[in-house]
Amino acid sequence: MSKKSIIKPKPISGFPEWLPEFRIVEQRWMDHIRAVFESYGYCSIETPSVEEIDILTAKGEVDKEIYTLTRLHAGADDDKDARLALHFDQTVPLARYVAMHFNDLVFPFKRYQMQRVWRGERPQLGRMREFYQCDIDVIAVDNLPLSFDAEMPAVIYEVLDGLNIGRVQLRINNRKIMFGLLDALGITDEDAVIQVTRAIDKLEKIGRKEVHNLLKEQKISNDNITKILELVLIKGRAADIAKIKAENAMMQEGIDELSFVLSRLEHLPEHGFIGDLSIMRGLDYYTGTVYETELLDVPEFQGSVCSGGRYDDLAGNYINKHLPGVGISIGLSRLFDVLKQTGHLQAGPRSPADILVVIPSKDQMDTAANTARSLRSRGFKVELYHAAQKLGKQLSYAEKKGIPYVWFPPFEDGQDHEVKNMESGEQSAATPDTWEKS
Amino acid sequence: MSKKSIIKPKPISGFPEWLPEFRIVEQRWMDHIRAVFESYGYCSIETPSVEEIDILTAKGEVDKEIYTLTRLHAGADDDKDARLALHFDQTVPLARYVAMHFNDLVFPFKRYQMQRVWRGERPQLGRMREFYQCDIDVIAVDNLPLSFDAEMPAVIYEVLDGLNIGRVQLRINNRKIMFGLLDALGITDEDAVIQVTRAIDKLEKIGRKEVHNLLKEQKISNDNITKILELVLIKGRAADIAKIKAENAMMQEGIDELSFVLSRLEHLPEHGFIGDLSIMRGLDYYTGTVYETELLDVPEFQGSVCSGGRYDDLAGNYINKHLPGVGISIGLSRLFDVLKQTGHLQAGPRSPADILVVIPSKDQMDTAANTARSLRSRGFKVELYHAAQKLGKQLSYAEKKGIPYVWFPPFEDGQDHEVKNMESGEQSAATPDTWEKS
Repeated sequence: MSKKSIIKPKPISGFPEWLPEFRIVEQRWMDHIRAVFESYGYCSIETPSVEEIDILTAKGEVDKEIYTLTRLHAGADDDKDARLALHFDQTVPLARYVAMHFNDLVFPFKRYQMQRVWRGERPQLGRMREFYQCDIDVIAVDNLPLSFDAEMPAVIYEVLDGLNIGRVQLRINNRKIMFGLLDALGITDEDAVIQVTRAIDKLEKIGRKEVHNLLKEQKISNDNITKILELVLIKGRAADIAKIKAENAMMQEGIDELSFVLSRLEHLPEHGFIGDLSIMRGLDYYTGTVYETELLDVPEFQGSVCSGGRYDDLAGNYINKHLPGVGISIGLSRLFDVLKQTGHLQAGPRSPADILVVIPSKDQMDTAANTARSLRSRGFKVELYHAAQKLGKQLSYAEKKGIPYVWFPPFEDGQDHEVKNMESGEQSAATPDTWEKS
Repeated sequence: MSKKSIIKPKPISGFPEWLPEFRIVEQRWMDHIRAVFESYGYCSIETPSVEEIDILTAKGEVDKEIYTLTRLHAGADDDKDARLALHFDQTVPLARYVAMHFNDLVFPFKRYQMQRVWRGERPQLGRMREFYQCDIDVIAVDNLPLSFDAEMPAVIYEVLDGLNIGRVQLRINNRKIMFGLLDALGITDEDAVIQVTRAIDKLEKIGRKEVHNLLKEQKISNDNITKILELVLIKGRAADIAKIKAENAMMQEGIDELSFVLSRLEHLPEHGFIGDLSIMRGLDYYTGTVYETELLDVPEFQGSVCSGGRYDDLAGNYINKHLPGVGISIGLSRLFDVLKQTGHLQAGPRSPADILVVIPSKDQMDTAANTARSLRSRGFKVELYHAAQKLGKQLSYAEKKGIPYVWFPPFEDGQDHEVKNMESGEQSAATPDTWEKS
């Protein structure tokens, strides 16, 4: 063969990939997240990576940067091909899925979805072009009980608490409270309402005075601004929220809903959740309960790890049914990447194996293979070393891969085996049928 | 809000998606496959869904139909964007990964990869545009021990045997045997050798006589054709292969390697593997051991479920290192789709939950929630019904979702609970702290 020219590969900006020792941590995270989702009865769905562009833009232009697909070599059937693009979230695909399979689903439909999504945005810390999202949503026909609004934060608390990333706080609000107040104050113009909620959303970032100025720009009187700001500064538990004086029926409804949701979370640790009337969520999509999540011990993490809320109409663009829902989404890759880059994430081992069975001499190959097989049949993850090489080399391989136990098979079946604990250095006799990790 | 126009979504040809009751089966499959891979010490990697087009085509034009990516709204930084395309397999990404992270990996590098790949081919039964592949490969620097060639079929047998799809047979050959014979017969022209191996590959499909004609076209003498056909008809175990008379050193090497590999598989059931000298695998890429896999009890499944082999040089296009490897790939979605469409696949439940805790009356809401939590803490997957509705409605919900147990909480904490087994209809007293599935 002739000498080849070499094309040295480079990382592609915004498309992360991990070494095995971090991928194994990502896997642990995803296994844990899935286990919690399933423990509440959420079923998995996966949708194709692509949707038709007409479906993605059914609500109007999307503000996300979409990647469209083109086949490199045009074929005769190209004209018949659907115009496809990679999905940019899991909500539009869920809406399309529910509309398309409406007659085959059981409602309330509780689903989780953990897939990659794509956005052609400029990459930076915590913003990628390809990343995993982990979503749960419950969709009902016509009426969705409020108990699901309380289930979301319970699930998410359990998910994030198990990731070993410090204390987590769910911040919960109900948009009806502010909508009710604005209505009572005579602020009913749709655009003004949107501007007010956006201004409130910025409270934490720009402070009370700047929000005051933004509200002033909307020609809201000083008295009314004071009332709005008094309301958004309220934080508390169910009993505190229940005490808020409602100005009208909508505001009362929001207060009742929020205090009900908070009252259903009393089994969580005190720091784990709070009613916080400054949480608005920019999207007009949400109609009642809204969620954000803060990592109390990771100040480097800006913004919300995980957010969502209740919406009135999931799939009105695709089906003539009234489908209210509530959902929440974890930006998994974003969280993982930021914690990794800020030193909050420890690498795992480079191998999933519990045990490396070594082959001290050529005569032991069969015994070693049998030993590996019987340990595997007992549920252990066992790598069999690949050749009768110097023992030091075999031990160093186990060390480099982070395999915690090294197993020495005997010279003949029936004789004593020995196992070395690589962390403590201890070595002791063992039998494959009864051995347990120490 | 004004009345919306509805865009009715349609399935996209070649991009499959499953209802929850089949997705749950696909998940079981993937969990099982992953568990077997890890039980042999293979670590997981995931690569981005895209590669640079220059990387994908480093070996020359690819015969697969590639999907390229374009951002819908061109931005100012578009010129600087890499030219990207979705990967069409996991071998090119593996090669690129190993070359790029060479200094951070421990060799032999044993990795598995279970991701979606994309090919813009015309969809038909068992051929999709988006599908999962499950690959394992071992990559070494300079020398890769033959024991890995024997590990591949052991892993794959265990994987497929656990999927409940009937008996599986691994068919194994070593290309050096035929290359040696051809060399001994004076058939050394590179193109002729390729044509001969391709003709042999067709043996099962077109029969002995047609292969004879194809070899004749290559101007091979009748005597030599007879010798070639005699060889490819050989099937057997290690001892049978060892008896083949070699015409030269290369042929002997192939015989020795194949009989070694077969001898290491004697722990498998008799039907589980066979040396089969007609297996050639079209790709020129393979240099020694090659594998195919047959489903003995699913005649509808055409072709190989799972194939692979040994190659000399994984990443010569990307790095100046000699990296031999051996690998095998399961066409997961293809297998799943064909079995589903031919009625070999049973749907699973529509929910992962083991138990539905019902709420017979409003007063029992707290007790029901506490019961669900304590069952979850014992590892059960538990859905809490969302409202105090008629019991018949709650039971019918469990039935429709395929949830096997329904739990009736008492009117007060401390009183008797009851559990109904939905399959047998039996109902009996139970406590959340001690209950086990019957």
